Amino acid sequence: MVPPSRTDLEVVGAFNPAVTQYEDEVVLLLRVAEAPPASDTQVAAPIYNVDSRRIEIKTWPRSSGVDAGDPRVIVDNGRTWLTSISHLRIARSRDGIHFEVDPAPALSADNAYETFGVEDPRITRIDDTYWINYTAVSPHGVSTALASTRDFRKFERHGIIFPPSNKDVTIFPEKIGGQYAALHRPQLDGFERPAMWIATSPDLISWGAHRILARARDGTWDNSKIGGGAVPFRVRSADYDGWLAIYHGVTESPYAYSLGALLLDPEDPSRVIARSREPILEPETPYERDGFFGHVVFTCGLLVDGDQVRIYYGAADGVTAVADLSLEDILAGLGEP
Amino acid sequence: MVPPSRTDLEVVGAFNPAVTQYEDEVVLLLRVAEAPPASDTQVAAPIYNVDSRRIEIKTWPRSSGVDAGDPRVIVDNGRTWLTSISHLRIARSRDGIHFEVDPAPALSADNAYETFGVEDPRITRIDDTYWINYTAVSPHGVSTALASTRDFRKFERHGIIFPPSNKDVTIFPEKIGGQYAALHRPQLDGFERPAMWIATSPDLISWGAHRILARARDGTWDNSKIGGGAVPFRVRSADYDGWLAIYHGVTESPYAYSLGALLLDPEDPSRVIARSREPILEPETPYERDGFFGHVVFTCGLLVDGDQVRIYYGAADGVTAVADLSLEDILAGLGEP
Repeated sequence: MVPPSRTDLEVVGAFNPAVTQYEDEVVLLLRVAEAPPASDTQVAAPIYNVDSRRIEIKTWPRSSGVDAGDPRVIVDNGRTWLTSISHLRIARSRDGIHFEVDPAPALSADNAYETFGVEDPRITRIDDTYWINYTAVSPHGVSTALASTRDFRKFERHGIIFPPSNKDVTIFPEKIGGQYAALHRPQLDGFERPAMWIATSPDLISWGAHRILARARDGTWDNSKIGGGAVPFRVRSADYDGWLAIYHGVTESPYAYSLGALLLDPEDPSRVIARSREPILEPETPYERDGFFGHVVFTCGLLVDGDQVRIYYGAADGVTAVADLSLEDILAGLGEP
Repeated sequence: MVPPSRTDLEVVGAFNPAVTQYEDEVVLLLRVAEAPPASDTQVAAPIYNVDSRRIEIKTWPRSSGVDAGDPRVIVDNGRTWLTSISHLRIARSRDGIHFEVDPAPALSADNAYETFGVEDPRITRIDDTYWINYTAVSPHGVSTALASTRDFRKFERHGIIFPPSNKDVTIFPEKIGGQYAALHRPQLDGFERPAMWIATSPDLISWGAHRILARARDGTWDNSKIGGGAVPFRVRSADYDGWLAIYHGVTESPYAYSLGALLLDPEDPSRVIARSREPILEPETPYERDGFFGHVVFTCGLLVDGDQVRIYYGAADGVTAVADLSLEDILAGLGEP
């Protein structure tokens, strides 16, 4: 369904979409991954060149001994390249199920922080502006950048809001206690334990007051790492009041990316009230289990309508899927924070 | 000269001080590293316990097979502990050379982000407030926190301003173009190349507009990694106008931490005008070459008086030293950015 942005590239995935309602349409912002066609004689990496302002293809003969064991990367003399480059593409739908995909990218690599592409967007609507945060990937690291639009035609870039290594950012849809808030996920290094963090901002551009929100939990489905998923939404029911944040958790063995929920204090979202005991969505179907990177369900956005939580998600880093869950069921599955 | 903060700990280093002029005194904020006395039968790691609000000593029999090969860390089953814990201690002087060290810490581990200690402070005076940023170390990662004081007696904490992994933060002493500015150094991961970054802030608490400032350079004295050192200061001479930032650079082989300078555009400090061709200070003396971690000169602060740049610096992660350099000489050594 997704045409490539250039004739010399193939679309290898259209997944991990942001989602929002815009006028009378459901708008997805898809991560579209493209790669040069496979070859028996060489491996290739597409890179955005900031001088020519074009994607160029770097190639290595397979006989050169370059490390292409992981299908996602090429390692040459200690330097890493990605085998595909992602841009963000709009898809529109009246019913939320049948989509038309734009022929051209909406946002693609455009500067030195994005030479390996732009990935995994989230859309947060605040008043009439749709704020889009996305992962910017380059040899300078994996960081989170911000853009905005009012019409999904013209986009404005606002620079890097979380420096490397940081991804899985989700911005809350309103100020809380006078400040904007966002979840983020600093990358692991030597003696850090994997965790989701929360930060606040006066203006969506500058972020501070960083605090740990939730950590990977030993002995359960999110024991390896966790990160923000869909944009949090407010829940007000007889039994539950707070921000519901659907997040992803990784099980180490057998390896799987699943989804769960955190319920956060309505006034102080740095306080976790409750957390899913079991996943609310796990990789089960063939398209979730097999793909470019299998055993993955990964969400960047959802739409809520009464009890229906419609989760759009990437499956196996290859395709976009949708699942309708019951809000009541999600809440009933919450346990200890 | 530096008494331990507790009778069961030894001071193993007093180094990497921040410096400022306060009233008629030079004030250092020393990083004081403490450790339990060495033992033939066990290794030990001091950790701040957030519940008891005390430093506790975790021990392992040497026979347990725990990895203590690097004197700075203990690795037990993939988890890392530090063999020492640092706090920040004030030292005062009338002449800038002879100091009296306070008997007790000024700032020490106080929360979950600091359980492995607080390190490497910088002091930036803005009006009558002295802003102190320092490295907070814990199993949650290496991050940068902010505190402030007006009198070096009472300190206020302002939380984490740069989430992990980030250190070597230096805050400029005035707003530039209506925003505060700071240098910072995200930690390396997989495919990132080591670099110093710059960010801006409306309020010193929230930081954004992150951009790369300068990278390690192949084939010279700062080829391995670089990071912010002293707080930048404004230079206005016949030939040079800009912010001078003394930074540290690491040579990989033979291993050494040296100091150099960046001259930054006065109106847009994200633009490097010039950079030291050669180090302005290298480890040469016995106390710089031999110590807890040898071949290191590392600055967190300096004082400028006319042509004299008095650099206070940590030597070999053990002691504090001072060197008077000529501003004219530093500027004359600048070359291509």
